[in-house]
Amino acid sequence: MINIRPLSFLLGLFLAVVAGLMLIPAGVSLYHGEGLAEDFFKSASLTAIAALMAVSSGYRSQLTLSTRDLYLFTTLTWIIVSMFAALPFTFYHGISYTDAFFETMSGITTTGSTVLSGLNDTAWSILIWRSLLQWLGGIGFIVMGVAIFPMLNVGGMRLFRTESSDWSDKWMPRTQLIGRGLVKVYLLLTALCCLGYLLAGMTPFEAINHAMTTLSTGGYSTTDSSMTHFSTLAHWNGTLFMFLGGMPMLIYLQMVHMRSLSVWNDQQVKGYLSFVVAASLALAWWLSNAKQLPFFDALTLASFNLVSVVTTTGFASTDYSAWGPAAGVIFFFLMFVGACSGSTSGAIKIFRFQLAGAILHKALKQQIHPSALFPQRYNRRTINEDIVRSLVSFSILFIATIIVLALFLVLTGVDPVSSLTGAITAVTNVGPGLGEVIGPAGNFASLPDSAKWALSLGMLLGRLEIITVAVLFLPSFWRY
Amino acid sequence: MINIRPLSFLLGLFLAVVAGLMLIPAGVSLYHGEGLAEDFFKSASLTAIAALMAVSSGYRSQLTLSTRDLYLFTTLTWIIVSMFAALPFTFYHGISYTDAFFETMSGITTTGSTVLSGLNDTAWSILIWRSLLQWLGGIGFIVMGVAIFPMLNVGGMRLFRTESSDWSDKWMPRTQLIGRGLVKVYLLLTALCCLGYLLAGMTPFEAINHAMTTLSTGGYSTTDSSMTHFSTLAHWNGTLFMFLGGMPMLIYLQMVHMRSLSVWNDQQVKGYLSFVVAASLALAWWLSNAKQLPFFDALTLASFNLVSVVTTTGFASTDYSAWGPAAGVIFFFLMFVGACSGSTSGAIKIFRFQLAGAILHKALKQQIHPSALFPQRYNRRTINEDIVRSLVSFSILFIATIIVLALFLVLTGVDPVSSLTGAITAVTNVGPGLGEVIGPAGNFASLPDSAKWALSLGMLLGRLEIITVAVLFLPSFWRY
Ligand SMILES: [K+]
Ligand SMILES: [K+]
Repeated sequence: MINIRPLSFLLGLFLAVVAGLMLIPAGVSLYHGEGLAEDFFKSASLTAIAALMAVSSGYRSQLTLSTRDLYLFTTLTWIIVSMFAALPFTFYHGISYTDAFFETMSGITTTGSTVLSGLNDTAWSILIWRSLLQWLGGIGFIVMGVAIFPMLNVGGMRLFRTESSDWSDKWMPRTQLIGRGLVKVYLLLTALCCLGYLLAGMTPFEAINHAMTTLSTGGYSTTDSSMTHFSTLAHWNGTLFMFLGGMPMLIYLQMVHMRSLSVWNDQQVKGYLSFVVAASLALAWWLSNAKQLPFFDALTLASFNLVSVVTTTGFASTDYSAWGPAAGVIFFFLMFVGACSGSTSGAIKIFRFQLAGAILHKALKQQIHPSALFPQRYNRRTINEDIVRSLVSFSILFIATIIVLALFLVLTGVDPVSSLTGAITAVTNVGPGLGEVIGPAGNFASLPDSAKWALSLGMLLGRLEIITVAVLFLPSFWRY
Repeated sequence: MINIRPLSFLLGLFLAVVAGLMLIPAGVSLYHGEGLAEDFFKSASLTAIAALMAVSSGYRSQLTLSTRDLYLFTTLTWIIVSMFAALPFTFYHGISYTDAFFETMSGITTTGSTVLSGLNDTAWSILIWRSLLQWLGGIGFIVMGVAIFPMLNVGGMRLFRTESSDWSDKWMPRTQLIGRGLVKVYLLLTALCCLGYLLAGMTPFEAINHAMTTLSTGGYSTTDSSMTHFSTLAHWNGTLFMFLGGMPMLIYLQMVHMRSLSVWNDQQVKGYLSFVVAASLALAWWLSNAKQLPFFDALTLASFNLVSVVTTTGFASTDYSAWGPAAGVIFFFLMFVGACSGSTSGAIKIFRFQLAGAILHKALKQQIHPSALFPQRYNRRTINEDIVRSLVSFSILFIATIIVLALFLVLTGVDPVSSLTGAITAVTNVGPGLGEVIGPAGNFASLPDSAKWALSLGMLLGRLEIITVAVLFLPSFWRY
């Protein structure tokens, strides 16, 4: 039996948060005189009614959730929240519900693919709602990553279980404590990022929006040209805070609580930093040669765009397809990388590459010395068979999802490059694809509705590390 | 210490075989009056001298090879044999040594990518030498797959160890016995395929060449248009024998020796057959709808091209890019599939997908029931941690090789589609890529020399399941 009533209660709480947040764009609209406040109030009312119904039909006591409850709850929450959060878009300029849902799912999963164009002329309330969705989705994902994923051992994430269970023995108090700490850190970083953008010359509205979509590695912008027309300083501020957004958020909390920098010995953080620095320098070197740019200019462009793709933010400071054919192939592969586990970023993530590398290194040594023993550790934890198998499962599901999605897209009539990179960018939560249609200079508006729904599903699957959704399709999940 | 002298002896024997085979095109040239016999005699003499030197500097006794010897021997043999087998091409129409080596490596690894065009006007002796290279490479790979790979547990192939060790306890006599059996089966199948092509209307020369390149899943043709202009019957004959070439060759031997059809219960064979039949029907159904073709015509085209890609043969009966954008994406993914382990085909191969599927299914069940035990078997053998880790290592090396190769190609100035699909088609030993340059209707002549050498290395790596070569790069391989 699935435990419907406590799930309903929790879902109601989340919907109440969404309804409350809708008052922010309503306020913006009133202040700015856009006349859209009524739409946001209507959306908020509908969402609040749903929240009330869910809370009252559930109850608070007995919040003991089984593993199966958690799977179902996680998937359903993201879908239902998106269904309601999409409402404000549907009132705007005749946007269809398909487009509204796509934009919302893209926002809340911090993917950042958009169906809107003419952003410069779009109402501020709509723009801030998009940014809020990414900001909310980002912190939601981080808390989920700390509180739920390690318990479920999604994709080898049991590796990170001890870190969070160091603090307390009981799940709820620990989760609440950590959750509050993470929200504070996230707020503080967003404020610092906003300040940086202000100092770099953005208007307050631009700075607030971009800060929210930078920290959440979401990538929504307030202009069609994304970050292109902002200053060099704004680029570096973006690079810094996208990088920080790609860090395991828990690390910051540990730094505050343990008052030590020893957490920088974290293997994942070291790998992430080394990769980003080395790859940025290599790309900058190549770019400065290929395009005859001064090295610093090349480094600004290279590091911003590389960090943007690697952290799965998806800002574009330039249409990198203009860098020549090699850039397309490089960015194609970079889309898969991802930043750290426990951050807002999507895709494969650094720790899985490190695990894979460790497994490979051991296997090669074993080929030559079949009977020798090579013990293996990652962040002082043994890489056991469970973790290896989780890694295999994640990889299979990840690749299979992309293949099925790409085939579906191409059969709906989408061109091959858009189909393939669209599937990848959705599942990795990067945002823009490659090519003329959905590349950094394009948007997703022209795709058929069926493709938009499929991509929305792809974003959700990517956000939930796929396996969380995949278990729901096992017949044995529903038997008891 | 690497055991140089017995290795040298064995290498000499292989070179002697190559020298001997060069007499066949020499004979063809004499018979056909092409005036190229002298070139083949020169090449044969040079190869024979090298063979003599190698044999005499080595010795026959003490043929006990260590695991490390086997790794080094395997890689070196393929390279040195290709260096000499390339000689006849260098005498022809001013072909550069780069092109000659590319063509030879492509032949002997049964990849089938070509730098030659105007095949209809190419000397018969050259054409038959290309086909012979694929035929020789095919049987060489099968024997290697039965005799060497399971001993080294390359990419989880220890799974297949028992099958071949059922026969005898000692390695050399067993290998010789099985080797002779496999050569007989391979010869017989080639003869039957040739007969089929003759009955389907090919000329004897066409039938012999295509039979050799069908059974070896190599895909070299005697015309630029590949199989396009042959009859429907020839297509079905090709489909049948490509499929049979993708079977584990040992199965045929077991069928003869054990006089039973129970080997058809082999899990890999069943998976291979099911996949090919289901995918052909699906593709034919789609094609007959998309192109308004009668179903049987669609099935002929679909099954031929699908089997051609899945068995990594790479014949084209039509430029499938003309089937529309969806076909490109479908064939892009099909290039990775591969047929059975123990066949002449390359790429990932069916058993690895089956292993991956089994691991995934278990992992999903484990997500819901963390403490339950789900024992796992493949072909009645337990899927243990060794096999899982081998699978992981193979996958990492396979993907990493393709990525590095694609990046190298695009940096040499090759266009993105050719770079990506060229890297894939080389490592999977399929042959043609996608796109206008190296697609089914193109060839590799226009690529820069550096790209050709890189692709040659890619083909070799793909043929040797990569790990065989990768261990040579471990520092600990060279320490003792
Ligand atoms: K994003
Ligand atoms: K081939």
